[in-house]
This record gives sequence, structure tokens and C-alpha cells, in this order.
Amino acid sequence: MSGTSTPSSGSPLKNDLFLRAARGESTERPPVWMMRQAGRYLPQYRAVRAKADFLTMCRTPELAVEVTLQPVELLKVDAAIIFSDILVVPQAMGMELHMDEGIGPQFPDPLRRAADLTRLREVAVEEDLGYMLDAVRLCRRELDGRVPLIGFAGAPWTLASYMIEGKGTKNFHVAKRLIVEAPEMAHALLSKLATVVGNFLVAQVRAGAQAVQLFDSWAGALAPAEFRQFALPYLARSCAIARTAGVPVTVFAPGAGWALEQIVEASGCDVVGVDWQVEPADARRRLAAHRVALQGNLDPSLLFGTPDFVRHRTRKMLDAFGSRGYIANLGHGILPETPVASARAFIDTVREWSAPASQPTVSPVPYGRSSAMLA
Amino acid sequence: MSGTSTPSSGSPLKNDLFLRAARGESTERPPVWMMRQAGRYLPQYRAVRAKADFLTMCRTPELAVEVTLQPVELLKVDAAIIFSDILVVPQAMGMELHMDEGIGPQFPDPLRRAADLTRLREVAVEEDLGYMLDAVRLCRRELDGRVPLIGFAGAPWTLASYMIEGKGTKNFHVAKRLIVEAPEMAHALLSKLATVVGNFLVAQVRAGAQAVQLFDSWAGALAPAEFRQFALPYLARSCAIARTAGVPVTVFAPGAGWALEQIVEASGCDVVGVDWQVEPADARRRLAAHRVALQGNLDPSLLFGTPDFVRHRTRKMLDAFGSRGYIANLGHGILPETPVASARAFIDTVREWSAPASQPTVSPVPYGRSSAMLA
Repeated sequence: MSGTSTPSSGSPLKNDLFLRAARGESTERPPVWMMRQAGRYLPQYRAVRAKADFLTMCRTPELAVEVTLQPVELLKVDAAIIFSDILVVPQAMGMELHMDEGIGPQFPDPLRRAADLTRLREVAVEEDLGYMLDAVRLCRRELDGRVPLIGFAGAPWTLASYMIEGKGTKNFHVAKRLIVEAPEMAHALLSKLATVVGNFLVAQVRAGAQAVQLFDSWAGALAPAEFRQFALPYLARSCAIARTAGVPVTVFAPGAGWALEQIVEASGCDVVGVDWQVEPADARRRLAAHRVALQGNLDPSLLFGTPDFVRHRTRKMLDAFGSRGYIANLGHGILPETPVASARAFIDTVREWSAPASQPTVSPVPYGRSSAMLA
Repeated sequence: MSGTSTPSSGSPLKNDLFLRAARGESTERPPVWMMRQAGRYLPQYRAVRAKADFLTMCRTPELAVEVTLQPVELLKVDAAIIFSDILVVPQAMGMELHMDEGIGPQFPDPLRRAADLTRLREVAVEEDLGYMLDAVRLCRRELDGRVPLIGFAGAPWTLASYMIEGKGTKNFHVAKRLIVEAPEMAHALLSKLATVVGNFLVAQVRAGAQAVQLFDSWAGALAPAEFRQFALPYLARSCAIARTAGVPVTVFAPGAGWALEQIVEASGCDVVGVDWQVEPADARRRLAAHRVALQGNLDPSLLFGTPDFVRHRTRKMLDAFGSRGYIANLGHGILPETPVASARAFIDTVREWSAPASQPTVSPVPYGRSSAMLA
């Protein structure tokens, strides 16, 4: 076991599948976790959430750790990801953040003019985001080496576009308009974010995170030329800073599957996330010459199928990705309405999988389930 | 000039650039039009819209034709597209359609159970959608051969997903859930839609449309396997029916740029639309072996740049697509806030373009514009 999987500050890691796969090694089976695995689909999560609002959960290490551990204990995933939100970084930079039930996160005073940037303050990560680092520390202790802990942050373009829009949007037209009309402002904001995000990831590793993931959730909003100017260089800079901490860095840019090669080349990430729009075999082929592990990519909406259907589709995914340098995951966050039985079927299928050679032939399982709702 | 460009029922076509490019021919310059060119960015459109709501405009041929002609007269585009909405088809099938200001179209009684399909009635296109066909007939007369008239319809998956969701959504999770849980219902609905849509396009051609376009606007919501089962076959069926009418058929499936080859192969379309996420040179390369014209693909948000920037980016696009079998367009509908001067810069740049050999070297023009708002 390497230094990263047996940190001096914690118990020896009992399950290092995730870290070995992230380093590109072959594993006896792929590790598996699910984006948003600490989330609303779990009744145990909803019970915690009923007592505290979302931001309170983020800012209270005991609560954040409680929900972080739920999928580890209930579903036996191979990695924990600290419960938090990508928008804690803009909040730490001084932006007021509202998380109202049913509306989604909002910045009531979005950034629209160059002068607005003066409102952003320098971030002292250990202080301003100390609650998240405390959660990481506590979580490492509570995990006691069962599985590795993943830290994360939003990538600069994604944070910037949210800070400009002020709220969720279908097309990010305000942000896209701003980068065309006021590119210097956009670059100044992105540059500032790249450093904060990188430093934040390093601080998470120092606090105990054994891997980190950068989410460029709105990368798909940009056309290729703008992606290369306003997303990729800043994503790469955050990733480069994060990599100095010595743990595997994953980059996930959903909606920008066309850019997988460029993301890997520019960022030097250890693992690249593959969204559900990319065919696993295509991702493998396109990245065959690159030294990078892959993570993904079952469409989370497939978890509404029968458990047999979920198992069938999961096995197809596993067969296509193979067992070298591969981390099984969904191709996007798990949906709140997902049946727990389906999440379990997904995870168990990965846990029971072994390389195709020794695998019996899988017969196709049709779509459909017996559902009173749809009778 | 061919039979389609000089129909016996109308004046000879004075500008047949669009039809020649759609047939894959080389043209002295590419034809140009813009998706949603009859729209809110034009003050003249807003003046009509101030007097009548959206559906009244669709259902009143004089109003529909008035706004259809505006971009032809004001901006000198090379094709008109009849003003209407893809949701008129579900409405003709019996679904109540609300178009409330600021909310977007809604079906208050969406389709959620197999039994809901019995609410859909058979469509007699000439009667139930007669107002749209009347608009096509009137528009052909008013155009008097200046430019060809394009008819259009939504593709089956896009209509079905809207009928299931009931309203606009970011991710179409309700529809995606339904195809997994109740695939027979989905297939029954899609099959019904494929025929109605195909017949509707044929009727538009009989009424005078000289080309038609199928919009599979939500194709990007589906993962590849589901796209191939729930979108592509029905898109192909509608396209096959439409092609019996003998005019060029364009298929545009934004968000599914990964599927360009499959769309062309399955549908046999004459023209395939390319969205802004695909690089023009990649689209050309990927479709080099296919007999298909291309249409697209400037990101409409680039129209917020300076006119010089718009001209620069438009010329880059034109150089990459070339002048054979190519129709210049945006890679998505023009945005309501777009400055008319930018739309004009886009169109004029195409109208003034000639093949790269005779073109002076273009120096890069930076992003940015002098804008009080962003000072």
C-alpha cells in the first residue's frame, strides 16, 4: 500500500480499490461509488435533512459526516465523498448564498460588472472554509480506514457562471453573454477562482482527503472555442495546484464529453469522469493513448428500471470499461426519487463483477417494471 | 432550376441558394438563415406580439406570415421559415396547451399512464392543423419567389417528452423515467407521433413549403442506448414519410452532436443540423463519407460580441464548413436579447463571403465590446 492509502495520521486503509484504480492499476473488480450518494434518495439522509437545512448540514461537521457515512454503511460503496456543496467557495469569497427549499441555490447579488469583483474578498481557506475541513478531519476518524475519503470543489468556470447568473439556469445565457461582452472581467474572476479552488483542494487533502474531484458541472454550456478559453485553462490550473498535494485528482465535466482528450491533456488529471452521453467503449478508445483512469457512467435515470434491468445495464457498462484504471459510478448525480433497491442493485452488481472472460453470457433484460403508477 | 424550386403553383424562385446547398451542391456562397429568425430580437416582431398572444399569432395566418417575412425583408436571409411552434401537434392531438407569458408552454394534463394515451385523438392534418397550412399557402404567395419557404415540426421524442413532462424542464427526468418504467407506453406514443409528424410535414409541402426541418430539440436528454431506441427510429420514420414529398428534409438534434453519423444514416435526411457544441471541421470530417449537407452552427451567444467579433467568428465558421452542401445558420435559436446589428453582421458576413482561396487573411478579433452596462 502506498503512502496516500496509509496516511500516518489515520488507520490503515482496509479497502484501497478506489485508490488503486485511480492510479490506473488493474483491480480484481472496479471500485464503485455514486455521485450525490449522500442524498435525498436515502430515507436516512432525509431524516437528518428534516432536522437541519442544507447549509447548516454543510457547516456542522457532525451532520455532514453522518450523511457522508450513510452510503458507506448502508450500501457498501468503496469510497466516501464529503458532504458539502460547490457553492461554499463563492460564499467564502463573500457572496451571500441562499438555499431555499424547492428553488435551488441563489446568489441574490450576482456578479454583472467589473466593479462587482471588488466585492469578493481574499479567502483564508483554513478559516473561511474551516468547517468543511473539520468535517473532513472528523470523517477520516469516523471512517477508520474502511474506505478512502474524497474531497471536492467546483471548477472555476462552473463557479463563475453560477456567480454571474445568480441562480440555476438552463442555458447560462447571462454568463455566456458576459464572457463575450466583458472577457477581461471573466478572466479576472476565473483566475481568482482557479487559485482559491486549487488551494481549497490542497487544504482538504491536508485535512485528510485521500483523493479529490473537480466538478466542472456547467462545462457543457460552452462551445469549444470558449471552453478552451474560459473553462479549460482555469480547470487545469486548479488541477495542477491540487495535484501538488500528492493524491489522485478526478476531473468531471458533464456535458463536455466531446472534450475528454483535451481535459486530460490540459489538466493532467489522474481520473477523468465520463458522463452518460458518452459510450464507454468510445471513451476507452479515445483515451487509449492517455495515462488516465476513467470514472462513470450509467445514466442515473436507468435506476428507475427493474433491479434486473439495472443489473443488466450495469454489467454492460462494466464489460465495456473493463477492470483496468476504472471506477464504476453513475454518469451524473443520483436522482432524489431513485429507489434505494436500484442503487443497491447497481452497487452490488459492481461488487459481484469479475472480468468478462469468467463471466456467463448476459441475456438482455427489457425496459419496464411492474408499477401501479404506470398501469 | 429544379421542379422543387419552381413549383407550378408559384412564382419562379429568384434565390435558390438554400435549395441547391440542401441538395449538396457547391454554391457561390452559402445560403444563410437563423433558427428563430422570426422572433423577439426584432422590434418589428415585438410590435406584432404586443397585439396578439403567441398562439393567436400561430393560428392567424396573416400574423404568422407577417412575422415570417420580417427577417426576409429586414435582414435579407436566404430562406423563410413559417412562424409556428412544435407543440401545435400535441395540441392537435387533443392536449390542452397553455402559453403563459414568462412561464413557457405547458400541458396542464401531461401523459403519465398508459391510459392517458386514450385521450389522444386521431389527427386530420388538413383540418386540425389547417391554420398552419393556410399560413404556408399565404406565405408562399406573399414571398412571391423571393426565397424558399421552410416548413417544420418537432420530432417524436421531443414532442413525447414534452407531453410527458407537461412543461419545460432542465433534464427531462419524468420522461426519462417513464421510458424506463413503461417502455410500451412510450413506444405507442412515439409511434403515433412519428406518423402524425411525417404526415404534417407532407401536408406543409403540399401547401407550398419548399423544404422542411425536423427539430429533435431534446435528443440530448437521452443516453446513446435510449436515443437509439426511443428517438432515432421515430425520427427516421417521420423523416422517411416527409421525404416522400420530394423536398429536402433537414434534421436538427441539438445536444446530440455525438450522434450526427447515426442520425444521417438512420434518417436519410438531406441536411443535418450541427449544434454549437460541435466543431465545424469535426462535423465535416465525420460526415465526409455521407451524402448529406450540413447546417449550422454559430453559438447564438457570440452575437453579444462586437460586430467585428461576430464577423470574425462567422468567417472562421464559414472557412471550416466550406461552400459545398452547406447552409450557414446559428447552432441554436437566436436569443431574444440579441442586438439586431449583430444578427445583421452575421448574415452580411455570409452574404459577402467567398471561398477561402480568394479571401484575405483574417486577423483575430478579441472578445469584448464597449458596453455601458459592463463598464
